[in-house]
Amino acid sequence: MERSRGLVRPALVDAVGRLHPWTGEMAAYAMGWADTAGRPDPAGSEGKGVRQALAVLGAEAVGADSADAVPGAVAVELVHTFSLLHDDIMDADALRRQRPAVWKAYGTGPAVLAGDALLAQAVAILAEARGPHTGAAVRCLCGTLNTLVSGQAQDLRFEDRPWYGPGAVGPEQYRAMAEQKTGALLGCALALGAVLGGAPDPAATALERAGRHLGLAFQAVDDVLGIWGDPAVTGKPVHADLRRGKKTYPVLTALAGGGGAARELAALLASPRGLDDETAARAAALVEEAGGRAATRDEARRHLDAARRILHETPLEPSPVRQLDALFTHLLDRTW
Amino acid sequence: MERSRGLVRPALVDAVGRLHPWTGEMAAYAMGWADTAGRPDPAGSEGKGVRQALAVLGAEAVGADSADAVPGAVAVELVHTFSLLHDDIMDADALRRQRPAVWKAYGTGPAVLAGDALLAQAVAILAEARGPHTGAAVRCLCGTLNTLVSGQAQDLRFEDRPWYGPGAVGPEQYRAMAEQKTGALLGCALALGAVLGGAPDPAATALERAGRHLGLAFQAVDDVLGIWGDPAVTGKPVHADLRRGKKTYPVLTALAGGGGAARELAALLASPRGLDDETAARAAALVEEAGGRAATRDEARRHLDAARRILHETPLEPSPVRQLDALFTHLLDRTW
Repeated sequence: MERSRGLVRPALVDAVGRLHPWTGEMAAYAMGWADTAGRPDPAGSEGKGVRQALAVLGAEAVGADSADAVPGAVAVELVHTFSLLHDDIMDADALRRQRPAVWKAYGTGPAVLAGDALLAQAVAILAEARGPHTGAAVRCLCGTLNTLVSGQAQDLRFEDRPWYGPGAVGPEQYRAMAEQKTGALLGCALALGAVLGGAPDPAATALERAGRHLGLAFQAVDDVLGIWGDPAVTGKPVHADLRRGKKTYPVLTALAGGGGAARELAALLASPRGLDDETAARAAALVEEAGGRAATRDEARRHLDAARRILHETPLEPSPVRQLDALFTHLLDRTW
Repeated sequence: MERSRGLVRPALVDAVGRLHPWTGEMAAYAMGWADTAGRPDPAGSEGKGVRQALAVLGAEAVGADSADAVPGAVAVELVHTFSLLHDDIMDADALRRQRPAVWKAYGTGPAVLAGDALLAQAVAILAEARGPHTGAAVRCLCGTLNTLVSGQAQDLRFEDRPWYGPGAVGPEQYRAMAEQKTGALLGCALALGAVLGGAPDPAATALERAGRHLGLAFQAVDDVLGIWGDPAVTGKPVHADLRRGKKTYPVLTALAGGGGAARELAALLASPRGLDDETAARAAALVEEAGGRAATRDEARRHLDAARRILHETPLEPSPVRQLDALFTHLLDRTW
């Protein structure tokens, strides 16, 4: 990830630097590069840069030059930042990477604008890339943007649905949402470098599928961390997702089991008073008892295995595939 | 405009229909096609469809088939709807075309999402268009999106600047903002159909410039209507822009004149109490007395003349140019 960051960083800084100064300042804040006064921010932590690393390794995996991937890497990082920024507005999440979210720091209107600027610049950077494969790359990114927005729509709509009984969100529906909201951009990241590098369609498609599985594995790990993660590591309070009433895979699988623990859990979650320290801890225990934690761990492993299998069954360069393998392990080794 | 609407409408309906049903519903509401329950809305008024008409006539002006323009026409209409939708959030405008704005009808978060969906779909529709000129068309749209967002950033930043004295917004700065916020998309609309139709660069550039001038003329007329427009026609209260403290061309030119009327106007506008019926009427009279209304009318005429001159100096098909001419007259003949 260090290596790809070094490769992509100048182009990413340049892309943000060409925005209107005010949206550029908000973008730099959102990227973790600066505080709200535009100074380097010791409290700012950059994202992991997973998506840019996937783009670079995707290009190398098809034998292309890593430099071919750069516009794709910049585009997916900008899209990722855009989506965090707008999602935080929609979800009313006040904190992002342990700092105030952009809408908290700058106001909702400016944050909407900063997200728009990032999205527009993402597509522009890719569209302006020179080379014979730009058109295919732009189509790939645009399809992903539609999918991403659709996934976010599904996630927002889940909020209004009951925890249990008719109309409840099933684990498969959750998986379909997560594949769109999280998987699609990781799939696009992995495919985009390859597409820009002139990969044949089957290789690009395989990378895209591998990235989607990676995204589903990643989301499953995130869901486990959202309930049982160490607050010192996650930066979120303990049992955060339960307190916020977020419908995630562990809870939905636990409820779908339908046993005694599931029924007690459903009653707790449906309480109009919400969850306090004690009831949230009880709910977490019930999710575990009803098998939700184990099922989510299995879900993560299954999708990680699928991602790896696709990589190894596809004719790709061995060294970048080994690095992808190591990256997958690193990404998913956050809880266990 | 009727003719181009008939040509473009099926593709536009299809593009909105392929969104997630919920964002599609919000988009249909924003387009004036449906009420909040998704039923045809007698109170909904569609936009004028200026941008799609410009795209179609732009293609015809370079001798291309009007069908070539359709993806471009769809894209610019979607971008226009996106920008109204997000701008209404940023400006806290509760009404749009005499109905609640999307954020008022559906909530801010969902409105952010609906705008994102429209923006993503706009670029996707264009990127998926078949033909040898898709890449150039996508670059044209992406450049415009960056410009549009930058124009909106400038406009929002004007709010924090003083009416008068050091740091005040000058008429030239206002014009530069309006060229980006309003002119760029009209320029893109007029150029995009031509680009898709394979126009040579000089013709596309000329159409783009003509569209920008049209946009500046259009904005000047809008600014006059925002102060002196008939509420029955504009759907806004009398002196709306003055009451909202909006920095527009008539006011900024009046203030820049610096005479007695300008000084009285500056004092009124700077009052922390804002403007009531009486002071707004007085401010409108002062803008007129200080020459702001006449200067804005001149501004509109100057840019309309420039747009027409460019069209007539460029080797284009005479019949579509005549239709563009008539469209310009129709658009700008809203006040006088």
